[in-house]
Amino acid sequence: MWPDRRFLDLVKTEYPIVLAPMAGVMDTDLVIAVAQGGGLGSLPCAMLSAEKAREQVSIVRQRVSAPVCMNFFCHTPVEADASREAGWRRRLGAYYQEHGLDPAAPIDVANRAPFDAAMCTVVEELKPEVVSFHFGLPEPGLLKRVKATGAIVMGSATVVREAVWLEDHGADVIIAQGAEAGGHRGMFLTDRLAEQVGNLALVPQVVDAVDVPVIAAGGIADRRGVAAAFALGADAAQVGTAFLATAESAATDAHRTAIRTTSADEIVLTRAMSGRLARGARNRAVRAIEASGTIAPFPMQNWLTGRFRTAAGEQSLGALQSLWMGQAAPLVEYDTAAEVFAELAAGVSDAAPSDARIDENRNAGEEPAARG
Amino acid sequence: MWPDRRFLDLVKTEYPIVLAPMAGVMDTDLVIAVAQGGGLGSLPCAMLSAEKAREQVSIVRQRVSAPVCMNFFCHTPVEADASREAGWRRRLGAYYQEHGLDPAAPIDVANRAPFDAAMCTVVEELKPEVVSFHFGLPEPGLLKRVKATGAIVMGSATVVREAVWLEDHGADVIIAQGAEAGGHRGMFLTDRLAEQVGNLALVPQVVDAVDVPVIAAGGIADRRGVAAAFALGADAAQVGTAFLATAESAATDAHRTAIRTTSADEIVLTRAMSGRLARGARNRAVRAIEASGTIAPFPMQNWLTGRFRTAAGEQSLGALQSLWMGQAAPLVEYDTAAEVFAELAAGVSDAAPSDARIDENRNAGEEPAARG
Repeated sequence: MWPDRRFLDLVKTEYPIVLAPMAGVMDTDLVIAVAQGGGLGSLPCAMLSAEKAREQVSIVRQRVSAPVCMNFFCHTPVEADASREAGWRRRLGAYYQEHGLDPAAPIDVANRAPFDAAMCTVVEELKPEVVSFHFGLPEPGLLKRVKATGAIVMGSATVVREAVWLEDHGADVIIAQGAEAGGHRGMFLTDRLAEQVGNLALVPQVVDAVDVPVIAAGGIADRRGVAAAFALGADAAQVGTAFLATAESAATDAHRTAIRTTSADEIVLTRAMSGRLARGARNRAVRAIEASGTIAPFPMQNWLTGRFRTAAGEQSLGALQSLWMGQAAPLVEYDTAAEVFAELAAGVSDAAPSDARIDENRNAGEEPAARG
Repeated sequence: MWPDRRFLDLVKTEYPIVLAPMAGVMDTDLVIAVAQGGGLGSLPCAMLSAEKAREQVSIVRQRVSAPVCMNFFCHTPVEADASREAGWRRRLGAYYQEHGLDPAAPIDVANRAPFDAAMCTVVEELKPEVVSFHFGLPEPGLLKRVKATGAIVMGSATVVREAVWLEDHGADVIIAQGAEAGGHRGMFLTDRLAEQVGNLALVPQVVDAVDVPVIAAGGIADRRGVAAAFALGADAAQVGTAFLATAESAATDAHRTAIRTTSADEIVLTRAMSGRLARGARNRAVRAIEASGTIAPFPMQNWLTGRFRTAAGEQSLGALQSLWMGQAAPLVEYDTAAEVFAELAAGVSDAAPSDARIDENRNAGEEPAARG
């Protein structure tokens, strides 16, 4: 049905469609919907406690019999520094006050912990079919334990050398995250905005550089993007924003509305909300924090903005939330995850080669030197 | 043979492949090679005198019977300001001295003139089948004269609202220039780096926003990129860097070598060399000028750097040239324009739908509401 079955044979889903893990704006409903459609649902666990992660995987397992992907972060934890922290709090003070929050109140730093031994034990216990990591991979001892469970390990690359590094360090699948993608860039060997590569150029270069299957992520929201990803040589396509706009996500109404109304050129890469480059709508908070010129490192900035973001979210006030979305947001048009999935699945069929082209691909496979 | 014939029926080429106009690094040889292959060759005329433009079109006409595209710039000319200019010269002084050039010597500002009445007369005289503009369109009176010659007018858009503006102002074809593209961004309603959109997201949005044919430009260097462009809904694909690396271009050896050796994450958008955002290798000149923090407006910065760039070019010293290239440069592998053209043409065949899918497309056309 599709150009190649490498991803399908490895992960054993019916369709080469992956739901992007979107920490903080989704829970099990989207994972279940995508799994029911025949794709791979990724459960974002970076902001979950061990107990909560167990609970969510259990809910998914009860509802659907399909491979599940648990997603974790591998960032370097930030060092505590009381005086720097006080300065950062001061600069965000106006937003706290706008919501009647005490700028001096302690911040909950429990969430956004990097993948650690405790969470590794949860993986060993739950045995998800797939484990994906953002911001690199965990240290070799932990990765070995994850792989010993039989889980397929996936990692995100934003440049070719990150893809090569991930393959060299044990990733079984590479997620090529083009500059179009919403949310946090998975970058871990670079932190420069100028280095980020658009998917039309990134995907074929990653495909050429590694031997493992490649998932194209970023800029894909309808059948056209899926078909293009396969044309570029990807083995699967990952989609976030189009699912985030559906009833099954946990996005606020303001966030859902923003996805439907923000033009691509107002969907920018910024460090303002979390301290790491992430793509979202350039709302009032992003503009003001960027103009202030001082942003704390990740995840400190995320904790600091988190207090007013939570309050803004409860009031569905988009101006002060993290409105993460990719540059394909203006292509979004469906209200349910099932409709989005059907649209993406149509792209898989569109990419299916005719018989003649299957033969041509076979020939090309025998003569790799003839190909770009 | 391909998803739709709108570009072919309008421009009357055999293949929906367009050679990007690359001012300063190509002349008639590449135009002739692409026209001979069956594509549309774009002759960059922005840096040519009227006499030189006449001569080059004449050479092309003698060698090949095919549609020709003349390309011009429509930027706002920079106002002269002697004291600011003196400051800019001072900051670039070290590069002049490195080549034994007098920093105070007058600068040749004749080139990079915006399209004007004199050049419009040349167009009326030469009657190229296609005229393309970068940085917007000429003022209505001039555009009317160009269209009165029967020329098809093409304009470059980097965001959806530029595409809509171009169509509203008379463009017959839109070139969707994704962030991956090499050389100067055609942007004219925005000047912000953060607004630039990757082609996987840009092309389908432009296709949805305008009624005229759309050419995908940026990130395309082999058959995979061409097939992806068609999957995204484009009517044609434009390619620059892959042709720039061939024997038929006028690039320096240093430039050609840089295309073969620079990784995508070192191919950055910068204002350093010309004063406008353009994508090229982050060489010594780019790094140093960006670090200096002061860059003159386009095309002043281009004139100022031009003096040492010319000297560096004569010595094939890549460190001080404008090494324009797109993010697909690492995909480049052929040495002749004919080989590049054959590779791209294979992508057109790859994108050809099977009979079933042609029918499906027809049905989709009757029910536009069902589509992204």
